[in-house]
Amino acid sequence: MTQHNITPEEHLRNVLSSYDDSPNTRLHEITTSLIKHLHEFVAEVGLTREEWFAGIDGLTRTGEMCVGDRQEFILLSDTIGVSMLVEMINHQAEAGSTEPTVFGPFHVANAPRREMGESIVIDPSDMDERVVYHGTVRDLDGNPIEGAELDVWCTASNGFYDVQDPSQTPLNMRGIFTTGPDGRYEIVAVRPVAYTIPGDGPAGELLFANGRHNWRPAHMHFVVSAEGQKTVITHLFDSESDYLDSDAVFGVRDSLIADMNGGRCEYDFVLSTE
Amino acid sequence: MTQHNITPEEHLRNVLSSYDDSPNTRLHEITTSLIKHLHEFVAEVGLTREEWFAGIDGLTRTGEMCVGDRQEFILLSDTIGVSMLVEMINHQAEAGSTEPTVFGPFHVANAPRREMGESIVIDPSDMDERVVYHGTVRDLDGNPIEGAELDVWCTASNGFYDVQDPSQTPLNMRGIFTTGPDGRYEIVAVRPVAYTIPGDGPAGELLFANGRHNWRPAHMHFVVSAEGQKTVITHLFDSESDYLDSDAVFGVRDSLIADMNGGRCEYDFVLSTE
Repeated sequence: MTQHNITPEEHLRNVLSSYDDSPNTRLHEITTSLIKHLHEFVAEVGLTREEWFAGIDGLTRTGEMCVGDRQEFILLSDTIGVSMLVEMINHQAEAGSTEPTVFGPFHVANAPRREMGESIVIDPSDMDERVVYHGTVRDLDGNPIEGAELDVWCTASNGFYDVQDPSQTPLNMRGIFTTGPDGRYEIVAVRPVAYTIPGDGPAGELLFANGRHNWRPAHMHFVVSAEGQKTVITHLFDSESDYLDSDAVFGVRDSLIADMNGGRCEYDFVLSTE
Repeated sequence: MTQHNITPEEHLRNVLSSYDDSPNTRLHEITTSLIKHLHEFVAEVGLTREEWFAGIDGLTRTGEMCVGDRQEFILLSDTIGVSMLVEMINHQAEAGSTEPTVFGPFHVANAPRREMGESIVIDPSDMDERVVYHGTVRDLDGNPIEGAELDVWCTASNGFYDVQDPSQTPLNMRGIFTTGPDGRYEIVAVRPVAYTIPGDGPAGELLFANGRHNWRPAHMHFVVSAEGQKTVITHLFDSESDYLDSDAVFGVRDSLIADMNGGRCEYDFVLSTE
């Protein structure tokens, strides 16, 4: 009839020890670390019952938004910088290689394979300003890589990806290009525009309630891969874009900002050995 | 073209500083603390892309389970000890008062008001062993409290609450009792049984994958309130029950374990001044 006023620290120890017999070492490590940090968070802010319930309600409404192509939990992970952190931790590339950034939810597998120099614009419009992306895919020693694949995608000039926009032909603004012996690539696309990530769900709510916006600076997506090299998931950002200093998903890196003025953008991708 | 290999710590600082202009001080405090702890968790375990996605998928499936009365996010919060922690933090009662425990998802507002000594069993069965709960509601000075309300609920002997079990009459095993001038209460119910919390969703998956079970030891729920006193949300646990040392939701406190042998359970509730 004692053990009155068990402390939060004792409670956490009890909770963690309930996982002592976990048969899965890695799951045990992940679960107990997450529990420890969540308990520390709750204790640190002195979370009230009402705030706890607001959190439960927010998670529940986040789940309700996950219908069809919409993945609100990924959006939440993106907007609090967790997705970018996971990329940083997992892409352990050597210094000198191209920096990675977030993958985003709009990649489509099996985009059309195109000839070097071809355009990925299926639905041209008078509004479109073109950019020719060109350069060389190299290894860390500076040698051009033959057979490197560049899987690229971007929004149309209206700021929407084909998968978000029924007015576009499917696979508009997507393509896969393969380098020849000189390692060079050349891709014609529209000049990217800044756009908003979806703001009509709980992820947007949390952004706006905290005085943040939901804009991403203009960028072109690249996944560059080659045999024996580490794949890099990255973007090139337009140096003239707004929001380079306040990307809603924290994807901007100085080394990925490129000059797209005059309709040409030169950039060399450097892969590190696997 | 520099800032290569930004560290996780620098990234976290960038993310946190994006909240600097939050107009809501409390929301800012909660959001930034949660972000800090989530980033620390991801970095601490070196979360892989596959593990991150398994987490996104688990949250998404947790959302899909939240249909009707089923609240899988609360279940998840319960099974990792967060719900109990929130109760502990919020119930700042003085030493000597009755300890709180988890509220649980099965309370129903406006249970029937009953005369002292009445039974809450609407659907009796031959299987039911009865317990008479009795004692006094007191203040910290030991004085009986007149007009204290005891809102009580428990499962039927099959381990299900009325709201989970279409075979029960609604409001079976529920009642609200009010003390007279002597502060005494007497409530007839079935002897509680150990039961499982729902194990067919992601909360159960996480328990079982970690070698935990989903049993709760036998208990009767009480919410005891009185004018001028702090309300206590608590249980009485049957001292003969299994799982007292491994409650799936970490609700057991030594001071809440009571002897129910012989069909009588004596327990005094002590409220602290508001």
